[in-house]
Amino acid sequence: MSTIAPARDVKRAHNFNAGPAALPLPVLERIREELLDYRGTGMSVMELSHRSPEFEAINNAAEQNLRRLLTIPEDYAVIFVQGGGSMQFSMAPMNLALPGKPVDMLHTGAWTAKAIGELKKGVLHNIAASTETEKFVRVPRPEEIKHSSDASYTYLCTNNTIEGTQYHTLPPSAAPLVADMSSDIASRPIDISKFGMIFAGAQKNLGPSGVTVVIVRKDLAERADKNLPTLLQYRTHIKEKSLYHTPPTFAVYILGLVTEWIESLGGLAGIQKRNEAKAKLLYGAIEASNGYYRCPVEKGSRSLMNVVFRIAGGDEAVEKEFVKGATAANLVGTPGHRSVGGMRISIYNAVGLDAVEALVSYMREFQRARG
Amino acid sequence: MSTIAPARDVKRAHNFNAGPAALPLPVLERIREELLDYRGTGMSVMELSHRSPEFEAINNAAEQNLRRLLTIPEDYAVIFVQGGGSMQFSMAPMNLALPGKPVDMLHTGAWTAKAIGELKKGVLHNIAASTETEKFVRVPRPEEIKHSSDASYTYLCTNNTIEGTQYHTLPPSAAPLVADMSSDIASRPIDISKFGMIFAGAQKNLGPSGVTVVIVRKDLAERADKNLPTLLQYRTHIKEKSLYHTPPTFAVYILGLVTEWIESLGGLAGIQKRNEAKAKLLYGAIEASNGYYRCPVEKGSRSLMNVVFRIAGGDEAVEKEFVKGATAANLVGTPGHRSVGGMRISIYNAVGLDAVEALVSYMREFQRARG
Repeated sequence: MSTIAPARDVKRAHNFNAGPAALPLPVLERIREELLDYRGTGMSVMELSHRSPEFEAINNAAEQNLRRLLTIPEDYAVIFVQGGGSMQFSMAPMNLALPGKPVDMLHTGAWTAKAIGELKKGVLHNIAASTETEKFVRVPRPEEIKHSSDASYTYLCTNNTIEGTQYHTLPPSAAPLVADMSSDIASRPIDISKFGMIFAGAQKNLGPSGVTVVIVRKDLAERADKNLPTLLQYRTHIKEKSLYHTPPTFAVYILGLVTEWIESLGGLAGIQKRNEAKAKLLYGAIEASNGYYRCPVEKGSRSLMNVVFRIAGGDEAVEKEFVKGATAANLVGTPGHRSVGGMRISIYNAVGLDAVEALVSYMREFQRARG
Repeated sequence: MSTIAPARDVKRAHNFNAGPAALPLPVLERIREELLDYRGTGMSVMELSHRSPEFEAINNAAEQNLRRLLTIPEDYAVIFVQGGGSMQFSMAPMNLALPGKPVDMLHTGAWTAKAIGELKKGVLHNIAASTETEKFVRVPRPEEIKHSSDASYTYLCTNNTIEGTQYHTLPPSAAPLVADMSSDIASRPIDISKFGMIFAGAQKNLGPSGVTVVIVRKDLAERADKNLPTLLQYRTHIKEKSLYHTPPTFAVYILGLVTEWIESLGGLAGIQKRNEAKAKLLYGAIEASNGYYRCPVEKGSRSLMNVVFRIAGGDEAVEKEFVKGATAANLVGTPGHRSVGGMRISIYNAVGLDAVEALVSYMREFQRARG
């Protein structure tokens, strides 16, 4: 990607959006470069037939890049589907829940609540752990989890965007782990073989919205009733290499470019270092503020992706002012989710250390002026 | 769109792909222009939060443009969903089929076959008409249709991409019409009030793949069982104005630009004229070839969007040569669907008359050299 001249004349914001989120500038520049003529085809990637050799190469590269980056074993399929993480709240149980065997749920916030909401429509399940009484300020401890003896699978959300929590060690489970990894996939090395299935909307760490990555152990995908709608069976997409029907071609192309970009930074080990440095800087600034900024999340559960904090004891007027000043300082996407308030700073893969530095100096300045 | 300087240095193909397909050059140029900084935000549209005022404006504009362009009455909802037309083969019956009341199917080719395939998984239905015995060379005549007395709805595919057929008058039906309009939406004026529901993947006439337009009469959307997966109920997307979950934001943005572009050409009346001129030129060239080129489709059912023909009595070696020469002449996407062979020329909205002129002269040249 280094061959592309940067667009120095263009205004770019420091983008802390929670998703859709910042994309790497070299990726955007490449997209722009190729937009009217993809590598001599005389067409935009958007105009290529999904059955063309050019798009098949794009599709294969996206899959192979992910396989290499995440070290995905051969017995796992990697497919690209539509409908976002929300569609997976239904597709996962449709495909993987066995009759009479409950789904064990680890409840850690708004996104697991949505997944549970879909199960309530008729899928046997068990809330094996929940941190709701503690307002989700941490993920469950291993000893708190009450597994079913015969679970179909154990479900977790590895990173909770709204609550700012993340698992730093995986929970124990005899049943296969099924993970909503939408907001921390490809942000750190992970042992895929510990999972039965992983899904992730691309729009946080891997690309634009409109494409969802599903990594599923091939034998588990065979659990599904063949009478399910064709498009809602993982096996359909596995068999057809994500080309059963017209895929979101442009989003798959961008996902391929983003995975290339992550590789250019040293793969997951490299991006993890970068992500840890950003999080350390930001949590450090919060800790150093003498309580003016306060992160409610327990230290062992703090997310490296979404940093949540309150200002001046949760004074909403002050928090509003903070957002206003941040926007003026070209710092976008600082407000917390409307359901919890406060601040939320999303520092996904594509957010640079320079953005966090700019934010941290704004935070110091804001406190100095008002604190 | 006229303010954007054209990119004269860029190679562009004459693109006859069946979908994903050609996009208007001014739209691609606008996308390129705004790619790194959408109107002073310092972000690409792909990087905007779907909850931001900027994206909400994009989303509203796309809906309002479609409403204006297609003259969609107030009692219809317009929503943007994922999963393409194929997802609608399942969603339409899930939402609109009433218990004990069959779905009346008008079977006209490969795409209605797929829709019927999904119904066979447990939805009561009736093949009210089929032209299969005639190899789908026409759409059914009104008097051939055997309606159920109590149908939930009557289903048709208004334009059959693979077979090259199109309805030029709507079939009679006491039950609401539900139409797969993926390949001819927004190509001609149509009376929306004749339909209960219309769906269309955007990737032929309206934009890139990854977003699907659903136009549904609001009262019919209330037929759906509330126990269906949340994302598979039309009412969810109606209630949340297509923002229940993260939409494919970039595809919605482009759809908005394409609808603007159609309006700039005089709306559906203008685009219809343009489409008729292209089709007339191409069918005329076929007719003028003394049978060297032959369109198998009955005259009254010929599609203005997908023109299919055979060469030299269906000589596959000659047809292969035709494709090879076409590609060399910068004419892309001429082969027919693999299931039927021959040629298929897709001349959707964004394909210019100049492209058809280039093709027609290539056809004359090819015949002269070989015929």
